[in-house]
Amino acid sequence: MQLQGKGARVAPGPPNQPRRAPQPLLLGRSSAPAPVSRRGALGSSATRPQDHAALAGFSRPATLLKAQEPDHAESPSAVIGRLKPIYRDANFPTDAQGRTYHLGTREGEVAPRILSVGTVTRAQLVATLLQPPAPGRQLFQRVSSRGFHTITGRFEGVPVSIVSTHMGMPNMDFVVRENRAVVRGQMAIVRLGTCGAVQHPAKLGDLLVASHGSIAVRRDADYWSLLERDEHQPSARTANGGGSSNGHTANGHAANGHGPAPAAPDVCFVEGPSALAGRRPYSVSLPVRSDPYLASILVEAAAAVVGPGRVVQGLTASADSFYSSQGRTGPEFDDANEGLLGALTKAHPDLMSLEMETFHLMDLARCSKGSIRATGICVALAERYSNEFMEYSKLPALELAGGTAALRALAGVPLREATGEELAAAAAKGVQYVWE
Amino acid sequence: MQLQGKGARVAPGPPNQPRRAPQPLLLGRSSAPAPVSRRGALGSSATRPQDHAALAGFSRPATLLKAQEPDHAESPSAVIGRLKPIYRDANFPTDAQGRTYHLGTREGEVAPRILSVGTVTRAQLVATLLQPPAPGRQLFQRVSSRGFHTITGRFEGVPVSIVSTHMGMPNMDFVVRENRAVVRGQMAIVRLGTCGAVQHPAKLGDLLVASHGSIAVRRDADYWSLLERDEHQPSARTANGGGSSNGHTANGHAANGHGPAPAAPDVCFVEGPSALAGRRPYSVSLPVRSDPYLASILVEAAAAVVGPGRVVQGLTASADSFYSSQGRTGPEFDDANEGLLGALTKAHPDLMSLEMETFHLMDLARCSKGSIRATGICVALAERYSNEFMEYSKLPALELAGGTAALRALAGVPLREATGEELAAAAAKGVQYVWE
Repeated sequence: MQLQGKGARVAPGPPNQPRRAPQPLLLGRSSAPAPVSRRGALGSSATRPQDHAALAGFSRPATLLKAQEPDHAESPSAVIGRLKPIYRDANFPTDAQGRTYHLGTREGEVAPRILSVGTVTRAQLVATLLQPPAPGRQLFQRVSSRGFHTITGRFEGVPVSIVSTHMGMPNMDFVVRENRAVVRGQMAIVRLGTCGAVQHPAKLGDLLVASHGSIAVRRDADYWSLLERDEHQPSARTANGGGSSNGHTANGHAANGHGPAPAAPDVCFVEGPSALAGRRPYSVSLPVRSDPYLASILVEAAAAVVGPGRVVQGLTASADSFYSSQGRTGPEFDDANEGLLGALTKAHPDLMSLEMETFHLMDLARCSKGSIRATGICVALAERYSNEFMEYSKLPALELAGGTAALRALAGVPLREATGEELAAAAAKGVQYVWE
Repeated sequence: MQLQGKGARVAPGPPNQPRRAPQPLLLGRSSAPAPVSRRGALGSSATRPQDHAALAGFSRPATLLKAQEPDHAESPSAVIGRLKPIYRDANFPTDAQGRTYHLGTREGEVAPRILSVGTVTRAQLVATLLQPPAPGRQLFQRVSSRGFHTITGRFEGVPVSIVSTHMGMPNMDFVVRENRAVVRGQMAIVRLGTCGAVQHPAKLGDLLVASHGSIAVRRDADYWSLLERDEHQPSARTANGGGSSNGHTANGHAANGHGPAPAAPDVCFVEGPSALAGRRPYSVSLPVRSDPYLASILVEAAAAVVGPGRVVQGLTASADSFYSSQGRTGPEFDDANEGLLGALTKAHPDLMSLEMETFHLMDLARCSKGSIRATGICVALAERYSNEFMEYSKLPALELAGGTAALRALAGVPLREATGEELAAAAAKGVQYVWE
């Protein structure tokens, strides 16, 4: 029976019903045994993933890291390759130990001062700058089933955590929210990443501090949806508001619209709120501020490490794609973004960098009711204006330089401590801190 | 010298100049040796990351996987932990071997039929369903420095690749674009993920096929920026367009705006293009279509594996956060999303699921000039309407069931093959295919 207007469950029906149930298919030439029964009852007969991995000859990812914390009952890498416990709350899932769903950490394992980096390799490299969290211990480490890597130790005597964030603003969302859930008191978060420098004075190998805050650059899929609609209903475009430029638009850079786009826009993005949404292929947000004090001590620390001539302050733009929303062009997709990079730098003379995470960190800090201080620093790995890419052999030293500066700023920023009430609640839950 | 209006380079200045260069700081109590020289010349004195990892006692991530492909000159895991080669083109970076920047694969390693899954564990599990790409070989595998994992083999005799995509639409962007760059001819991509079921008939453990396409749900940071602005300029709100509801809005669910928000909106999101952008905390896109034929054979295959009573067809919503943009609420952040979930299901009676990737896959397929066919299938891991979470012990069997269905659909969908010209170009470049 097919339901009208609701998600339709597949069920047997008359022959002219396209969603009727087909007969079960054989599993064909697959060399693995049929993994599931053919009708329901999946749970009880479930084959454990370890068994399948063993069948295929995979080495277990659980061997990724050796246990680093002998006084901790559970191996820090235990989450990988293991069946997870039951999560009971679909609104904010945590397991019976209070571990968050994606990052897999719990209260006491993450310091209030967090360095967010992109890759596991960078997290491990920068962690070489840390001291043990407590005398006689090794660095705390935990790798989650989703690949997030948390390392906790001390820098200049102060507890800090390094968290690998992967790429993109949705991943920054996990890192900020799930760490906020397991830390009491005010937090500081600094993002250390790589970026493309978009204009002078930022150049290859510089450390770029987002003192001026961040804007978001996002693809607006409605632009293409409206083009499709207009192709089928030629009069609809005007009826839906037309292409007139009555909003706070950027400037006159034309997107030449390679490919089948029937109508090239007169500007390729709309900036800020109001009007024109869906009528331009890209949207650019209003700027969100960086924490001014945290940024200022980060700039000082960076200049102390690499010299003031290699540190630039300005605005960063966080894009929702490495490609189209950063003005990278190519023949495969209709991106309508040829004018984007030039328009961005023209509209924002203090724009120095394009990357993919900082804006959302600053936006969540702004919405954290004062509980998070945040800023960002990036290594300029590419120059978009010269199309040059830095030699990769130079990157590790710059990651360590940026990491040193970021950890120094994190260790030095004053934070409002957890209230007595919060600490009492943690004590009542038996929270143990890896740095105590 | 501080530049006006441009990104300002830090340089020595007068004492009242806040961006003047501070003196170099000592590295304090860090136990690691000072990692960088203090002024420039970072490249030549760079310490290799392997050395730092050894200092810290880390096991090398290069041991994650054993080499799986003895006839391939380079270990598939060689990218991890190794200095990368030079990338020469900042517009679309590839190395001298033609490997893409984030996924690290090159032409001949990725099949035109791709299953995109969220985690490495899921990729490995579903890969147990594959046969070798060619007689006598093992599955091709490559792990990139960014953690993307590509596995190529055959399913029912047809070359297919499984790619771990991590989470979020920016990561889907990498997977679609960088795979498109290394495959000739038409492609098919199916996303297999987990999701939250938002209303009946979708329930825990069902396989949900996005036959009706996808919408995007995104946080609009401008909403909070305008609130901040209005707090400082009480009259600005009206001047900027006011809060009047003159667009294609959803419905009357009120966001009660916990926290300091000075003015609660009368609806919590704006739907589709036009008006109100920045005046609501969330925006919902117009729907983008799924490939109808690919979805239809995916539904048939899924029903054959788990039974028709456990397969649902409908619309999926891809959010830019697991939390706020999926209507998950909590006290830590001002998200203004209390009414979001109810409003979404009311506005879209065929909405079955919330997840984080499918929309962007379908959007890029739509903009691929006909070169990509795409759809999505998800395991319902949570029920948002009952707040229940599925037992994790049941997940692997469902991942294998969904994987079987998706691979069957991928193997069965007709694709336009590469042209003679494209194949000749590949032959001239000496491309070797792992399945030949």
